[in-house]
Order: sequence, then structure tokens, then C-alpha cells
Amino acid sequence: MKQHAALAPYLPVHAYGLGDLLYEQARSRHDMIAVIDGDHRFTYEQLDERVNRLAGVLRARGVGKGDRVLWLGQNSFRVLEALLASARVGAIFCPANWRAAPAELNVILDDFDPAIVFWQEAEIGDANRAARKGWKPESNWICHDGCAGEDSYEELLASADPETEFAPVETSTPLLAIYTAAFSGRPGAALLSHESLIIIAWLAMQGQSIDEKSGYLVSGPMFHVGVLMGTLGTFLAGGRNAFVPRVEANQLLQMMQDEKLTHAFVPQPTVVQMREANAGGKYDVSSLFCDAELSDWSMPMVMPRDAPAMKSMGGYGQTEIGGLAAVAWMGGTGAGRPVPFVAFKIGDEQGNELPRGEAGEIFARGPIVMCGYWNRPEENARRVVNGWHRTNDLGKRLPDGSIAFVGPKTTMIKTGIENVYPAEVESALRSHPGVADVCVIGVPDPKWDQNVKAVIVRKPDTDFPAEHFIEHCRALMASYKKPKIIEFTESLPKTPVGFVDRAAVDAGFGGGGYPKVG
Amino acid sequence: MKQHAALAPYLPVHAYGLGDLLYEQARSRHDMIAVIDGDHRFTYEQLDERVNRLAGVLRARGVGKGDRVLWLGQNSFRVLEALLASARVGAIFCPANWRAAPAELNVILDDFDPAIVFWQEAEIGDANRAARKGWKPESNWICHDGCAGEDSYEELLASADPETEFAPVETSTPLLAIYTAAFSGRPGAALLSHESLIIIAWLAMQGQSIDEKSGYLVSGPMFHVGVLMGTLGTFLAGGRNAFVPRVEANQLLQMMQDEKLTHAFVPQPTVVQMREANAGGKYDVSSLFCDAELSDWSMPMVMPRDAPAMKSMGGYGQTEIGGLAAVAWMGGTGAGRPVPFVAFKIGDEQGNELPRGEAGEIFARGPIVMCGYWNRPEENARRVVNGWHRTNDLGKRLPDGSIAFVGPKTTMIKTGIENVYPAEVESALRSHPGVADVCVIGVPDPKWDQNVKAVIVRKPDTDFPAEHFIEHCRALMASYKKPKIIEFTESLPKTPVGFVDRAAVDAGFGGGGYPKVG
Repeated sequence: MKQHAALAPYLPVHAYGLGDLLYEQARSRHDMIAVIDGDHRFTYEQLDERVNRLAGVLRARGVGKGDRVLWLGQNSFRVLEALLASARVGAIFCPANWRAAPAELNVILDDFDPAIVFWQEAEIGDANRAARKGWKPESNWICHDGCAGEDSYEELLASADPETEFAPVETSTPLLAIYTAAFSGRPGAALLSHESLIIIAWLAMQGQSIDEKSGYLVSGPMFHVGVLMGTLGTFLAGGRNAFVPRVEANQLLQMMQDEKLTHAFVPQPTVVQMREANAGGKYDVSSLFCDAELSDWSMPMVMPRDAPAMKSMGGYGQTEIGGLAAVAWMGGTGAGRPVPFVAFKIGDEQGNELPRGEAGEIFARGPIVMCGYWNRPEENARRVVNGWHRTNDLGKRLPDGSIAFVGPKTTMIKTGIENVYPAEVESALRSHPGVADVCVIGVPDPKWDQNVKAVIVRKPDTDFPAEHFIEHCRALMASYKKPKIIEFTESLPKTPVGFVDRAAVDAGFGGGGYPKVG
Repeated sequence: MKQHAALAPYLPVHAYGLGDLLYEQARSRHDMIAVIDGDHRFTYEQLDERVNRLAGVLRARGVGKGDRVLWLGQNSFRVLEALLASARVGAIFCPANWRAAPAELNVILDDFDPAIVFWQEAEIGDANRAARKGWKPESNWICHDGCAGEDSYEELLASADPETEFAPVETSTPLLAIYTAAFSGRPGAALLSHESLIIIAWLAMQGQSIDEKSGYLVSGPMFHVGVLMGTLGTFLAGGRNAFVPRVEANQLLQMMQDEKLTHAFVPQPTVVQMREANAGGKYDVSSLFCDAELSDWSMPMVMPRDAPAMKSMGGYGQTEIGGLAAVAWMGGTGAGRPVPFVAFKIGDEQGNELPRGEAGEIFARGPIVMCGYWNRPEENARRVVNGWHRTNDLGKRLPDGSIAFVGPKTTMIKTGIENVYPAEVESALRSHPGVADVCVIGVPDPKWDQNVKAVIVRKPDTDFPAEHFIEHCRALMASYKKPKIIEFTESLPKTPVGFVDRAAVDAGFGGGGYPKVG
């Protein structure tokens, strides 16, 4: 085609990865601080030089496009360096959960088959050595902390050529691997592309109001997409990323104060510890939190009060679609509306679109969506239906078109040929004035496979009869979805973080016979 | 490669164009108003149906991937429809300058070779008919306004199948063609991809604080990337685009008031007209302007006072890199810093990077950059150097790494083997207390090709001698850049919009012998 040949010179111009972003930051923000970690402070120019040296090390060891690089360590500025060096050579980088046991690490090693393993001596050296011993294939193990010798990260960096020329990496190339919830019995590594990560970073920048003056406390686990989103958003905006190997309240407080940090990912238990540690107001945390007592803090994403994601909290997402891909700050109700570069479809099992208001599976498409799971051809083939990624989650369109999350598809009840989603029935029951709490389960039935059963905690001083609740549901939804059986209880078993423990409800109230999903 | 085969199912998931964005908007914002134009008001759901019908019309007439669609008309909501319908079928859409004469339109028709021409009867019907007559090839001419019969836009839409299924279009596919400044003697159409346009839209959304409650007055020409940026930003955010065929002060004021518009692109002369028309305060323009008299308004982009691009104005860009690709609101000084998905390089003629502070050509790369010029294989080959787009503009890195625009490369002076950029020398001279205005030109020299000459307007009551200005420059820059000849004058010739008229200065002060660029 005439057009195609004429435009061919421009194709390489569009290849743009995280390595190109670093190239730019080293020039447009050369003397601004990029990373802080203990005694380490590096500018964007210094970070660029270190990353290029590390990429040279990788390249010298034969690591190229599609090869895997594994991180077995705690949070560190070197996680960002190793990610960026992998980006430079087109490799795939995975930060593993450093709390994993050697046997679990061996499963990951077998599955991910890394060419390079960055490992850590401090705290988890024994576990890492045990994993290495239990894994047969040869690969390059590089110790990132404290070790001397030829497998020492810093020594390799010091002796590496300061490489600066790398072949362009296509924007759509997979870069980050994050092991996510088990399907079919084993976890899989969702692969996010350079493009997806830059989109995610931009979303963080905009939604969390991150700019080049911001400082981000990387205190959550870096194998979590929500933490990486803040880290990469800060990197894109040209701010400072401050790393801590693990969460220790006084250390975090000290760092917030010293570096005047403005953003963070801090899980609730850590907030409680920090609150206690700062009860006397020893540390000035005013750059981050609005009150020194942290009295009102209950969410892990910490950002300025006037940030869009703070003014309108909430959203829907999963690692496989780049984290929160529908957000309340884009408008609407429920989980809000999709971010740029995403479309959603609520569909049936075959991927046919359902009318607004009907619950079905959430499908997503767009460059933010993962490139698939590493080494899972069957699952990848199953998860793509007519060009759409199936999330294995259930949702619906609210009357204003917003996305609402209904629940995970894995808790589906099968009654006859019909699928019933407990979350949808629970939602209907919660709208009844007599319901304080509820859990809907499937109980085995010889004829219908399963029946729908509601376990209800009634509100104090109410005594609506069972039939009343069934009629309430019949008026709100298709008849086959209504509970056939109602059982009352004083309270429902809960998980440590406060959700209803469905497995315990099944065990205590006769649940079972669920269909196999996925 | 094992990885590639395993990930193949996910490739179609990432194809995401403006058509997919419309698909999503029709669902997540189905009942919100998308476009307003005279008596026309359509929701996103209605717009989606109309676009799908129009795309069906295009498809039925054989328009597919890479085919061209030309718009010969004023601003209209149908420009957005035709753009989106082109997006759906993978075609390339060009909104031409509706003020062009028939002979100019024939040049565009010959060059762009459209399969479909949307043309307009009102005001410019005669010019369009003359252009059609002067152009030999057969194509489909569809009249978008007022005409009846088989080439009537609305009749075709009404009789079209309400198509909804279209093959996915790769994000990198060219979609928009904008004829831009002449190079090598004739204008060329810069092609921007779906991806570039979505990035541009996102930048408008963020920089101009556009959200789903915003209303954008499309009063600037839609063949200008700055206007399309606002239109597409509003489309991405889910706001209302309000179109006017041409700028008429009272009509604009009425629309602002009626629709409570919040954003606009209004050129300065139009603001003056509006100020006069609203001298009595007849119209309430408080949704858009902060004062009813528009007394302090001097820039075409109108947006809320607290929008990032309003708090930090300025930037550097060109249509070929998607408009402003460095902006002050990303931080820094001068023209600010690059937006996401862009890297810049200041390079010499061969594309080798120059040290910070040195002026050279601005190169850019990233998916926001154009896909090349339509039908210009030689120019496209010349404009890409080692994976970078050469802008034909001169710039430098400021001490803090920010981008500064120095001037267009086409005014380069050649002295011996050295390139001297007038804008750089002028900048040095302007820092001298005796200079009121200045223009640096090249004058022919038999030995050095050209000499550098400065034409200076001295400040009142100063009489610094010529040698003084030469010494001033010698202290600030490499010696070969300093002017060898100084001539004083009372005033410099200016263009109608107030820039120094370089051609007139050359003619009046002996300029000439410039090197051929490009």
C-alpha cells in the first residue's frame, strides 16, 4: 500500500518504553532527586547512568527480549533500577513476594524460568539460598545487598561499561510480571506492557496529584500493582521515590519528616503502629498527613486532600487490567467510569453484551490490559473472548452507565441452567429493612444441582418471616435468583479484614456443590 | 518464542481506537449530551448510533483501512461524526481549511486523493463545486448540509443499516490528517494516530481541567490541532462539545450563556468582538470567563482559572508532535517539560546529542509523534534520524533541563562550516541594555558564504557604538556566532500579527545567501 511504504520511516519513532522515559528524565530533570533509600540518594542523571550500567550487565549475560528477570528481595531503589534495566533490554521483570517460603519460590522459579535472579542477603538470605539449591536450572544469581565478589550488584555496576545505546523497545512489549490470585489451582504472572505501565503511571500522576515536587513513600509491597502505580507515577512526574525495605513505624515517620514526603501507600495496620509511635507528636508528618495523630486515616493510598482520587474515592480493577481501570474521579456513581484507553462490556458467558442494569461478567479491552499470563497458553486462550479480556469478575452498568462491581465470579451458584450471583441476591436482601447482614450460598440439590439459600442476620427488634424475604427478592429480580431457603443466625463468620467468610458460612450452613469456574 | 505464542490471544485486546472510546462513552455516559450544534443535541448513545450508521455508509462505499476522507466545510458536529466514522473503518480523516480557494482545494484533492468528500452548501458551496469540477478522479461527494438526494448526509444516515460491528483498529493506525506549514515549497498533511489523539485528548483533559460536566465551545478552526485537542479532550472526559459554523460574537455569547460552557478556543479578535457585543452585560458569560467584560482576556485557550495549563502557561510543540508536547504545567522553566509518552533530544545535523545549554535541532520520539506526512516518502525519510523525528525547529536545554524553543531552523545562517541561528544571537543582544528591538540576518560573503549581521533598534537616549554590541555577544557565545556587522535603524518591519518580517529585513538590509534547509 502506497501509504504504508511512505510512512515506514516513522515506525521506529513510536517505540517508546520505560527506558525512553528514563532517558528523558535524565535530561529534563538531571539534577533532581529520583530515589532515596537509606544513605542512597541519586538524581535522575545518576539513576540513568546506574540503570544503563545494569542493563549493560544484563546484556553481557545474554539477557534480551522476552527473557525473565526475577527479584527476590524486599523493597529497594534497586527494584526500580532492575525494572528499568529490564526495560532497556526488553526483558520481563518480576518482583516476587519476599515473604514466600523456599518451596513457594521454587514454584515461581520453575514457572518464570528467570535468566537473572536478583537476591537479597539481609533477613531472607537463608530462604533465597534454599530456593536456589532446590532449583536445578542454571541462571545468573546477583546479590543486591552486602555481598562481595562477582555476583555483587554494586561491584558489577562499578565494573560495567557505562552503556547508553540500546535498541528501541516496542511500547507493547511485556515488562512487568505480577503473580496474582490463583486460578485453576495455581497462581499466574500477569504481564503488563510498557504502554500499560506508562498509562498507569499517568493515572497515578493525575488521580493522586503527583508532580515533580512530590515525594512518594514506597512502603507497601512492590509486588502489588497499587504500590507500583504510585512509584511509577512519581517517576513519570519527576518526583522522589523514597524506599524502605520493610515497614517499621519509627523509620517511616523519620523518613516522612526528613524528606517532607507527600504521598504514600501505607496499609492500615502500619497506620495504627505509626499512630502509637507518634502519640507524643515527636515527628512532623504534616507534609503527608493532615493531622499528626493520623486519627482519621483508614485507607492505604495517602495523597493530598484535593487530589481527584481523594475527593472521589473508589473504583474497580484487578492487576490484569492494570489496577483500577474504572475510577470514581472520572465521574458517575458506584465504581465510577473507565479511565482513558479502556472499554468495558458486561457480557454473558459467551461474551454477548447484556442490557444495562443486568449483572454479568465484566470484560475489558484496551492497551492498559495485560498481555496475558506468563506461560499459560490455555488460560490465555480461555480468557480472551472476541477481542475482550474476561475478568472473572461480575458487574453491571448502573442506571447512569457507571460500572458497579457485583462480586467475584467464582462464587457463582448454578441452579438448573441458570447462573445466580450471590452478591446480586445479597444486594437485593440488603435493601430490605429487616436485614442487618446476609450471606447467600448455594446448597446441593439433586434435581437443580444447587438451590439458593440466604443466611440472614435480622435487625434488632424485627421478626420478618422467611417468606417475606423471598417475596422481597421475587419483586426485584428474575424468579430463579430468589432464595428458596432462608436461615436466620445471630452473626456471620468474618475474615480478619472484616469480610464475610464464605467458606465458613458454607461449612456452617450446608453450602456446596458449586460449579467449576475457569 | 514460547512467550510470544502463549501471549498471542491477547494481541487483539490491545487494539483500541477512537471508535472504541465512542463505544465506551455510549455505555458509560449514554444519556449525557455529547454534541450541541444549532438545533441539534445528541447524547453519547445517539452519537454512537449516528456514527455507526455513517461508518456503515463509508464501508458500503468501499472505504476501509488507509483510505482518505476529506471534510470541505465549516465547523460542525458532523466533523466529529465523520472523524469517528473514519476511526471505525480505519480510514484517515482530514478537515481542510474551508477558506481555501478552489485552486488550493484542487492541490489538496490531488495530494490527499480522498475516497469520500464531505462538502458544504452553505457559504462555500460555489467554491466546493468549483473544486469538484477541477478535479478529475471519481470519488463519493456527500453534502453534509441542506442538500437532498442520494448524496445527502442525513438521508444516507437515515437509510443506513445501524451497524455496530467493526473490525478492531490498531491503536497506532493513522486517523487524522492536518495540512501544516509548507516545507520544500508545498504543504504536507501530518498524520496523527488513534493513540496520539487519545494522548492529546488526555492532556487536554488534565491540563485544561476538563471533566464530564464541562462544555467546550468549538469556536476555533477544526483544522487546527489546538482546537481538536479541546474537542477530543471533552469527548474523552464525557463533556459537551458545542459547535458553531463560524465565529459571530452574539451567537457565541448566546451559546455560552445558554449552555453554561466552561472551556473554549477563542482567538483574540473574536474576544474583542465579544467584548464590544457584551459591553452592556446582556449575556451572562460567568461560566466561561471570570468577568463579564472579558477585560483581561488575551489567549485563545479559555479554561478554569485553577486548571494546570492556566496556572502555568506555555509550552513547545508543533502539529507533527501532536501539538504542545512540552508544557509549563509539567514543571520547569522556559517551555517546560515533556508530557507523558514523549522524549526530546537536542541534536546536531546528524542527530548527535548536544550538551545541555547548546542550541541545536529539537528531535522528538514517542507514540504521540505523527506517523509521517501523507504521500511524502522522501520527506518522511529525511525527517527521521536514527529513530527520532526532526522538528525543523531549534531549541536547547535550559540549566534545569527544561526545553526552550530558540526559533525555526529555516532561518539558519551558514558562516564557514558553522551554523548560526539568528534567534540565539538575537536573544543575546536583547540582554544588552541598549537594545530595544533586533533582527539578525545573514549577508552574502564570498569567503564565508555568509556573515552575521545584526539590525538593531537602539533604546531611546542610548548611543552604544557597534563594537560594544559585538563585544557583548563575544562574551556570551562562541566567537563565530557574534555579529560581524551592525546596522542601526529606527524600526523593524513587522508582519500583520506583530512578528519581525525577516524577509523584509533581508530585502532592506542586504540579507541573502542562506543555506538550503531540508
